[in-house]
Amino acid sequence: MHVNPPQDEWLLRKLRLQQKLTENGLEGCLVTQNVGIYYYTGSMQTGYLYMPVKGEPTYYVRRSLERALNESHVRTVELGSFRSFGKQLEADYPALGATSDELPLVGADLDVMPAQLYLRLADTIPQVRLTDASAILRNDRSVKSSYEIGRITHAAEVVASALEAGLASLSEGMTELDLMAVIEYSIRRNGHIGLMRMRNYNQEIMTGIVAAGEAAAEPSYFDGPAGGRGLSPAAPKSVSLRPIGRNEPILIDIGCCVDGYVIDQTRTVVIGELDPDLLAAYDTAAEIMRVSERSLRPGAIPEDIYSQAVEMAKAAGLSQHFMGYGRDQVKFLGHGIGLEIDEWPVLARGFRTPLEPGMTIAVEPKFTFPGRGVVGVENTYLITDTGCKELTVSPDKIYVLP
Amino acid sequence: MHVNPPQDEWLLRKLRLQQKLTENGLEGCLVTQNVGIYYYTGSMQTGYLYMPVKGEPTYYVRRSLERALNESHVRTVELGSFRSFGKQLEADYPALGATSDELPLVGADLDVMPAQLYLRLADTIPQVRLTDASAILRNDRSVKSSYEIGRITHAAEVVASALEAGLASLSEGMTELDLMAVIEYSIRRNGHIGLMRMRNYNQEIMTGIVAAGEAAAEPSYFDGPAGGRGLSPAAPKSVSLRPIGRNEPILIDIGCCVDGYVIDQTRTVVIGELDPDLLAAYDTAAEIMRVSERSLRPGAIPEDIYSQAVEMAKAAGLSQHFMGYGRDQVKFLGHGIGLEIDEWPVLARGFRTPLEPGMTIAVEPKFTFPGRGVVGVENTYLITDTGCKELTVSPDKIYVLP
Repeated sequence: MHVNPPQDEWLLRKLRLQQKLTENGLEGCLVTQNVGIYYYTGSMQTGYLYMPVKGEPTYYVRRSLERALNESHVRTVELGSFRSFGKQLEADYPALGATSDELPLVGADLDVMPAQLYLRLADTIPQVRLTDASAILRNDRSVKSSYEIGRITHAAEVVASALEAGLASLSEGMTELDLMAVIEYSIRRNGHIGLMRMRNYNQEIMTGIVAAGEAAAEPSYFDGPAGGRGLSPAAPKSVSLRPIGRNEPILIDIGCCVDGYVIDQTRTVVIGELDPDLLAAYDTAAEIMRVSERSLRPGAIPEDIYSQAVEMAKAAGLSQHFMGYGRDQVKFLGHGIGLEIDEWPVLARGFRTPLEPGMTIAVEPKFTFPGRGVVGVENTYLITDTGCKELTVSPDKIYVLP
Repeated sequence: MHVNPPQDEWLLRKLRLQQKLTENGLEGCLVTQNVGIYYYTGSMQTGYLYMPVKGEPTYYVRRSLERALNESHVRTVELGSFRSFGKQLEADYPALGATSDELPLVGADLDVMPAQLYLRLADTIPQVRLTDASAILRNDRSVKSSYEIGRITHAAEVVASALEAGLASLSEGMTELDLMAVIEYSIRRNGHIGLMRMRNYNQEIMTGIVAAGEAAAEPSYFDGPAGGRGLSPAAPKSVSLRPIGRNEPILIDIGCCVDGYVIDQTRTVVIGELDPDLLAAYDTAAEIMRVSERSLRPGAIPEDIYSQAVEMAKAAGLSQHFMGYGRDQVKFLGHGIGLEIDEWPVLARGFRTPLEPGMTIAVEPKFTFPGRGVVGVENTYLITDTGCKELTVSPDKIYVLP
């Protein structure tokens, strides 16, 4: 089932990051997080990747070296002792030993690297100054290759098939948990790796959210428009044991991860019918999606697409309900997806870098009604040369069951 | 399904941590990780917990404040802007504003806190010096309360039932993935929260490992005696699409997480029969388990229990195969479990603090045979006043299927 990237993928990734390091005046970049290491090497073993601004990167591996040597597409060597890592680096990259007045500036993934490791690295590599390169790394991954788009597209098919399986088993009285279990069984058998990766600290994904009625509308720590009630305060998100009822919105916001690549999709379902105001809110979400689709094209500014959606929600009299309710609203309309579910760009204030072909973005206009539920929709799009293409394949509509 | 801790749980946790802060000369402790916040507050929303060495802790919440106020058992307030967090802290805890020569020393969970957050906190709370308190926090959680033992025991029942479901569906030719899907479906319907938490950087759990024959023995980054082949280099661990065959060891190392608490259990299964040398290795693992059980009691030194197992493996001529093979061996026999799968104590060199009643430890003697498979067993134990008690409930034997 696993599909390998083509050979030139690795060269492309190296050159693109090196270009960004040059632009930012960095001597190199140290990548310590498993996902980042995988992106530049093709292997996710324990160790560090050093990418110099020029020349060949090196993957320093503690364990398993054998597996890393089999998988990696870059120079791969054994990591000596942690204590001597600075010396090992300098032997491979003499530029790091320059004894000028200013220490060479080396970027690192400080948004995910634990502080303890950061302090130990600073001790072990005293000849460089580590600086936060997380914005560079997140930008670098935002434009996907054909290979990556292919994997995300495949994941979209897996999720669509799981939604069908879920809907086929759904009946009044079934718990949110039991519906989710059916969906998860389907994605797992079709190659879901068993987890979805999320970059931001303390954020977690449990395959997404299945939540009905007021349980979907409960406020949440989760950095998304809906969190769900969850199974306990130790899992305060996603499914609960609440039975699914008639005439209430059922939010099915699910993803999966195949070959490392995730997809994200939401559909609103109802057994019976929705109240007219909830239907109207759904229609506003669908209209925001249509308008956003016309805006998703190279050169568009993410922040503007968000502002446009905020205006449309306001015009519909739904400002308080948009992307969560009241003080628990989140301030974005969509997010990049790829190896992680919370990639860049984010359709939010502050994201002013124009969209580029190859970006993959989940757009999720939703409206929350406390005590009643959440309605909305989420599709994942690819930015093309001229506009956008939807990658999610489930029919984009309200699913009405008898 | 969720069971709430008794009221005095929160007082106990506060007093115990404060005692450790006193012993370590710390003015207080800042907890930023979701699991740590949950442990001391009963809530897992986004924010920070500050525990002073004396007096009442405060939970500073960004989102969702409403939910945190409902769930938390400590003083809970809205987190103002991140920029003013230092001022907010000092207003609540005047001791942090002391302008002596030395800054007050405040511990924090630096083993999990991202470096970026650490640097921003250091900027925002310049009036204190942050120091690594991760060992204090990990030690603090190693002794479980009756409530916690009850939740782990419940999780053990959920896993035992899933193993039965898996074995009932197992037949020659079934893939590792399909067997895992059956097991996961069972634990999920019985309340598994959809993920298992692991503390160490870049380590991940996908419900455990189902791996047969040589796929189980492939070397892995995973900090455990066996990793498994996995579905791709982006998921280089746990199940693969390999069909399960006759006369080969099938390793079923599974856990689950109910109400936040995890369990860990391994059983060796075979359809047909195992080669005599693999059977002998299994018997050595079982014998190590029996001997370890006699050692697991208050006052025992974790390091000694590990050394004893290493000696037994050596006496059996299996040193190279113990806890992984050759250079990919891990250097421990067992690990604490609780809210995270990799808690303390670890049965390993360097862990010299004596065992105490209430500790919960998964012990997992295993032998790896490259190209052939992994045999072994894993049980989770509670340290009692006089010895230990097994919490896992699946019959402890090789499972031989016709």
